[in-house]
Amino acid sequence: MNVVPIGDNLVVKRLNAEETTAGGIVLPDAAREKPQQGRVLSVGDGRMLPNGKRSAPEMKEGDRVVFGNYAGNEVAIDGESLLFLRTSDVLAILR
Amino acid sequence: MNVVPIGDNLVVKRLNAEETTAGGIVLPDAAREKPQQGRVLSVGDGRMLPNGKRSAPEMKEGDRVVFGNYAGNEVAIDGESLLFLRTSDVLAILR
Amino acid sequence: MNVVPIGDNLVVKRLNAEETTAGGIVLPDAAREKPQQGRVLSVGDGRMLPNGKRSAPEMKEGDRVVFGNYAGNEVAIDGESLLFLRTSDVLAILR
Amino acid sequence: MNVVPIGDNLVVKRLNAEETTAGGIVLPDAAREKPQQGRVLSVGDGRMLPNGKRSAPEMKEGDRVVFGNYAGNEVAIDGESLLFLRTSDVLAILR
Amino acid sequence: MNVVPIGDNLVVKRLNAEETTAGGIVLPDAAREKPQQGRVLSVGDGRMLPNGKRSAPEMKEGDRVVFGNYAGNEVAIDGESLLFLRTSDVLAILR
Amino acid sequence: MNVVPIGDNLVVKRLNAEETTAGGIVLPDAAREKPQQGRVLSVGDGRMLPNGKRSAPEMKEGDRVVFGNYAGNEVAIDGESLLFLRTSDVLAILR
Amino acid sequence: MNVVPIGDNLVVKRLNAEETTAGGIVLPDAAREKPQQGRVLSVGDGRMLPNGKRSAPEMKEGDRVVFGNYAGNEVAIDGESLLFLRTSDVLAILR
Repeated sequence: MNVVPIGDNLVVKRLNAEETTAGGIVLPDAAREKPQQGRVLSVGDGRMLPNGKRSAPEMKEGDRVVFGNYAGNEVAIDGESLLFLRTSDVLAILR
Repeated sequence: MNVVPIGDNLVVKRLNAEETTAGGIVLPDAAREKPQQGRVLSVGDGRMLPNGKRSAPEMKEGDRVVFGNYAGNEVAIDGESLLFLRTSDVLAILR
Repeated sequence: MNVVPIGDNLVVKRLNAEETTAGGIVLPDAAREKPQQGRVLSVGDGRMLPNGKRSAPEMKEGDRVVFGNYAGNEVAIDGESLLFLRTSDVLAILR
Repeated sequence: MNVVPIGDNLVVKRLNAEETTAGGIVLPDAAREKPQQGRVLSVGDGRMLPNGKRSAPEMKEGDRVVFGNYAGNEVAIDGESLLFLRTSDVLAILR
Repeated sequence: MNVVPIGDNLVVKRLNAEETTAGGIVLPDAAREKPQQGRVLSVGDGRMLPNGKRSAPEMKEGDRVVFGNYAGNEVAIDGESLLFLRTSDVLAILR
Repeated sequence: MNVVPIGDNLVVKRLNAEETTAGGIVLPDAAREKPQQGRVLSVGDGRMLPNGKRSAPEMKEGDRVVFGNYAGNEVAIDGESLLFLRTSDVLAILR
Repeated sequence: MNVVPIGDNLVVKRLNAEETTAGGIVLPDAAREKPQQGRVLSVGDGRMLPNGKRSAPEMKEGDRVVFGNYAGNEVAIDGESLLFLRTSDVLAILR
């Protein structure tokens, strides 16, 4: 299924805990909140401005991003959990 | 009855659980929240901008869409439950 | 009494339960929330935009409309209960 | 005392219960919420728009108006209770 | 001390109960909320608009004004209690 | 350390109780809320407007200002307690 | 990992308690809230304005900044705790 985000939305695959720590060291389960990093799968065509034009998207497919702790909507699509974020939920790109 | 959404609204027929999982595998009832997918039945003529013009609708009849968990107004019209959403409730189109 | 809504308001006569179900089948009283449909009696001259102009009203007298569950102000005028809505309360026109 | 409302405000004398029912039939006291109708005593010079201009007032002295249930500020001026409303509190004019 | 309000602010000396009733009749203490009338001592240079210009102040020194019940900031300056309001707190001028 | 406020911020040294009463009379400790007066130490370069320009700052270093009761952020910098305000927190300048 | 903040965001390394007091005097643990100072590691390309343009960033890499008490998102990246702020969270630059 091809997921095409609308406007200012983007869809992200959340990384698992091992992927987000340099040495792959995993904390004991209790201390592990959901990782706040993910890989961008696709982006919408940007935010609608008051004058009707669109601002260009600030991320692109493949970017690794950091986002706020309780940001976005987690939705299962064909059994896979995907995270839908708005641009304003994204704090930074990790390169 | 012909349902014509106003402005930035769209009306959606929510898919049932079987329709939203690839192999049609249905979870035990307790775990089944309302599916967050639906088929667009009709769209309004778009959002009113501060300058009085309208932004073109971003979805069209027949699109399969994903939306937030508690989004929209569920209203029974002629005994059929329809979901009224705003464009900003829609996260993505599934193609 | 002639009721002339102000600006972005419209006044609606709420349909009763029988009028809103195709076969006129009425649910047992407990399940019957107030119907979310009504007939437009009159509309204001439209919403004031930031530039001082008005957007044209999106409904007209006689339209049958659907609105959100707890939308609007119910006021008795000469013993008749009328529902005052804003354009943004209206989800769709039923034709 | 001459009461001159500021900007988008208007001052209204609330009608009493008898004045708001066609046959003057008055409900038993408990059921009588404050009437939501009143007579406009005076209006301000209109709402200030983002560009610094003013939108013309939508009501005038003498108009009979309907307003939301808990709208406005009730203030005693020289022993008389007056209701100060904003234009957006007014639902319609009754003619 | 000369008190110069900033921008959209104005400073008011609240009238006492006697000053606000025509015959100077004073209600028993319990019923007496703080009077909602005062005398303007000085005004700021007006509200900043989105385009950077200022809207002219709508009140002037010496005006007698009516304001909302819990409006503004009461601050003691040199032992005198002064009430700082925004223009939007003021309902009307009494002339 | 030189403290340079950002944009619409200003930094203020709060006056102590004696400094804010004409005769220097100090109320018994319990009645003494934090004084709502202070001396401006430095100001930012003004508020960013929607068009990207800046409005000129409305206060300057050395001004004595009055502000709302719970306004601002109190932060210790090098052991000294400084109060960071926004322009909209300031009610007036005392001259 | 190179952390590139998005738009109006900036990423800061929070200073520890010793670094924020002139003589390096450290308060007993109980009184020590998290220091409200940090070093800017990198900034985004500025805030998006309603007209689609960007306002230039107000801080730069290396600046020492003061921010509000509960501001921002603290996120561990490669085991290092980084603080993501918006420009409006920053009160001043310390020079």
